[in-house]
Amino acid sequence: MSLLVVGSMAFDAIETPFGKSDKIIGGAATYIAWSASNFTQPIKQISIVGYDFPKEELQALEARGVVTEGIQIKEDEKSFFWSGKYHMDMNTRDTLDTQLNVLANFNPVVPESYQDCEFLMLGNLVPALQMSVIDQMKNRPKLIVMDTMNFWMETAMDDLKKVLTKVDLLMVNDSEARELSHEFSLVKAAKKIMQMGPKYLIIKKGEHGALLFHGENVFFAPALPLEDVYDPTGAGDTFAGGFIGHLARTKDISFENMKTAIIIGSAMASFCVEKFGTQRLKEITKADIDHRLEQFQELVSFEIELV
Amino acid sequence: MSLLVVGSMAFDAIETPFGKSDKIIGGAATYIAWSASNFTQPIKQISIVGYDFPKEELQALEARGVVTEGIQIKEDEKSFFWSGKYHMDMNTRDTLDTQLNVLANFNPVVPESYQDCEFLMLGNLVPALQMSVIDQMKNRPKLIVMDTMNFWMETAMDDLKKVLTKVDLLMVNDSEARELSHEFSLVKAAKKIMQMGPKYLIIKKGEHGALLFHGENVFFAPALPLEDVYDPTGAGDTFAGGFIGHLARTKDISFENMKTAIIIGSAMASFCVEKFGTQRLKEITKADIDHRLEQFQELVSFEIELV
Repeated sequence: MSLLVVGSMAFDAIETPFGKSDKIIGGAATYIAWSASNFTQPIKQISIVGYDFPKEELQALEARGVVTEGIQIKEDEKSFFWSGKYHMDMNTRDTLDTQLNVLANFNPVVPESYQDCEFLMLGNLVPALQMSVIDQMKNRPKLIVMDTMNFWMETAMDDLKKVLTKVDLLMVNDSEARELSHEFSLVKAAKKIMQMGPKYLIIKKGEHGALLFHGENVFFAPALPLEDVYDPTGAGDTFAGGFIGHLARTKDISFENMKTAIIIGSAMASFCVEKFGTQRLKEITKADIDHRLEQFQELVSFEIELV
Repeated sequence: MSLLVVGSMAFDAIETPFGKSDKIIGGAATYIAWSASNFTQPIKQISIVGYDFPKEELQALEARGVVTEGIQIKEDEKSFFWSGKYHMDMNTRDTLDTQLNVLANFNPVVPESYQDCEFLMLGNLVPALQMSVIDQMKNRPKLIVMDTMNFWMETAMDDLKKVLTKVDLLMVNDSEARELSHEFSLVKAAKKIMQMGPKYLIIKKGEHGALLFHGENVFFAPALPLEDVYDPTGAGDTFAGGFIGHLARTKDISFENMKTAIIIGSAMASFCVEKFGTQRLKEITKADIDHRLEQFQELVSFEIELV
């Protein structure tokens, strides 16, 4: 009855208008696990790393209730590496370098001990590998959530479309939603994407918040206006971690509870961007999270009396 | 005890990716009056038009409780004309033509019968003319709200800064807030702008909603996700009209009531963009407005239980 997370664990080197990081720990599954472990444990992780991935990082995750049995360690290869530079608006970025390394021949294997998972979070990854994990599950999870990116729309659209028919909820950003649907209006894009398979769709708009669609229903979660955004890397994954973490904890996949989950995801993402990499996620306490959730409540609460 | 609105009444010719209008009725004060008159009447209007401005348009406004004594009609000049073309994102546009005509020598005069106004809405206009109206008021209004645009920041910054020291609330869009403050972060921009005079600041972000700042408080109003946006012209003025209309009706200028006002402004703006020009604003009923306000409530309402 736990959460299964699949995705990369890697190194990033990041430049933003406000600073530059060395090679630091990153990867979708890393951010998802740090974020989700505030709400639910254990988290059963599937990933792949090389000999250069610090053992202490894996131990730190284990101390947070992350099960590492499904993390393959390739002793003769290097971990995945990505380097990027953000533009002033922090919503767009250029990739400076990508070294697939261990990811080039990754074949995710679902351990027997992971078969009880009811919640499956597929972080951004080659669509065929996301599909492989779904196929290996003996019982279909109660909820399958999937992240993806424009790169796969351009290089593996057929595979991506197959995975879409198998998942309950897709998370993409606004430009990806437009690319996937060939619609500029996000409302029209959402309708088309939900016809491709997922019954629920989250469109992330970075500093402009996120939209949750389901049938004719729509919910909007704002992003917290921040004085400084140091590094948006991993914000989407941190959002995903908070979202799925809350759902796995409450075991309630109603639209109403998804609203709460998307607010929790947004709150977690607002921490992520305050420092480089996973640094801020490692520092925050339950009190910090509660305080931020109160700020979200204040941010959008209003009273209206129709006259 | 009524609302005074100052601004242009004009002709627009608009191109969007979805269509093209003939020369149609526009102008900041036109949109403000159509929007605000749903909530408060009378509205005392100050503007200037030429011989070509249709009398029926003035009569239609009078039927909505708009007092036209302060609207100067120049029988030997043409009305202000603007023509523009929107880009695909509908947030940016190119000006194709601007003909000042009557606006070139406009000297607004506040009629004696307008001196009782407690709410003053200064639509986008030459800052010196906005100042002239403030100076003509024998009693300072309870609330002075001002709109402006980047053009005045580039051509009349000194005058603009003087007006800023006289108003309670400034409304600008995100790029204007950045230009005025020389800050990219909207939170930092807001702090700097509030040091220039206004105690309250609204930053409009188009399809991404609007932020209200006051001291350390911030409130976020979403924009309603729409399938189609036909014409964003006047959306900001329609927003201003709904905002000030609600405040003038309730005579409550607390931060809490401004939250409600900004939601009402957002709801009104969501109608404006559904058709070209003022067309949709002329059609909608009280029931339409109430229904849309309910949609806004559903859009952002969530329940959270801190555990």
